[in-house]
Amino acid sequence: MAPSKKGGFATVYTAPLARLIEQLQRLPGVGPKTAQRLALHILKRPEDEVQALAQALVEAKKRVGLCQVCFHLSAEPVCPICRHPNRDKTTICVVADSRDVIALEKTREYNGLYHVLGGVISPMDGIGPDLLNIQALVRRVSQNSVQEVILAISPSVEGETTTLYVGQLIKPFTKVTQIAFGLPMGGDLEYADEVTLARALEGRRELMS
Amino acid sequence: MAPSKKGGFATVYTAPLARLIEQLQRLPGVGPKTAQRLALHILKRPEDEVQALAQALVEAKKRVGLCQVCFHLSAEPVCPICRHPNRDKTTICVVADSRDVIALEKTREYNGLYHVLGGVISPMDGIGPDLLNIQALVRRVSQNSVQEVILAISPSVEGETTTLYVGQLIKPFTKVTQIAFGLPMGGDLEYADEVTLARALEGRRELMS
Repeated sequence: MAPSKKGGFATVYTAPLARLIEQLQRLPGVGPKTAQRLALHILKRPEDEVQALAQALVEAKKRVGLCQVCFHLSAEPVCPICRHPNRDKTTICVVADSRDVIALEKTREYNGLYHVLGGVISPMDGIGPDLLNIQALVRRVSQNSVQEVILAISPSVEGETTTLYVGQLIKPFTKVTQIAFGLPMGGDLEYADEVTLARALEGRRELMS
Repeated sequence: MAPSKKGGFATVYTAPLARLIEQLQRLPGVGPKTAQRLALHILKRPEDEVQALAQALVEAKKRVGLCQVCFHLSAEPVCPICRHPNRDKTTICVVADSRDVIALEKTREYNGLYHVLGGVISPMDGIGPDLLNIQALVRRVSQNSVQEVILAISPSVEGETTTLYVGQLIKPFTKVTQIAFGLPMGGDLEYADEVTLARALEGRRELMS
């Protein structure tokens, strides 16, 4: 076989391909191998399809902002959920991130409004209450006839801190509840961690007969 | 909690976000969940970064074509490998796909040229020899002083068929070899499949002392 000469090697990727792979690698969970696979796939697709993807990227970034009322992702100043005539305006579910709104909407179980904090209080990461949409929530709750605020923030240390902090601020204005934590449905008690089990015990309810 | 009213639900994603998720799902190995994660991540990135990704997509698709000589992905009419002064022009390694060229280049062990067939013969999928860059290879081999053609096609049924077919066609013009198949380095003999083991035995060589 032809002997290897270091000088003999051109760069493995042609420039535009290298740039695409580099860009794709910036996406979460996309390593060099995945980036290469995606890039080579894209080169095989018809041009209009690639254009459509590029278009969708730019359009989404350009047009999707935050709802002025609840800070959920929205292409309009006020999101469809806040505008919807059939939704219960007296209940606000407080979540950390827009993806939590999406998850809750998919359950189709909740018909109230939302309030997206945009994160959780995390001094380690320099995220104080003032960096979150907390004052806006207090204003919302104090100025409108809100009957219940449901705190639905993941039970991490930061999440719990945020729940307590927000809870204290809005208790004066309305009833404040927190979503239940416990054994996940289909979860096996034997394999549940101590903290979850403790929460499940603490949150026990009388059996309806 | 606010009662659920079917009528009360707006679409979960705002239109531009839905379109982006739909487009991302067309990528290989990207399901609904990954597409949503990628889309929400993209919305959080600065606009110039998103523009750069979109740009890279369109540019790569626009500018990257196939090398006139070896059919490897290239932004120029003739790829850097074919043009490179230090590469051995008398050896051609035949592969099925451009990703095979990339894999071989990464080994830095091969200093000859390549020829990308653009697939393997697969009657089931309606891919006959005429749909692959085989005639171009025969022309290349017959018209240039090629001393060795290395067939490096994956040992699937279609791959083997392609290797035999191409081998027959170019044997009249030059020496034809095939890459070795056998136990992968670090592979455990105990767990190797029968076919691989058979190939490893068949391909045995005298031990150099």
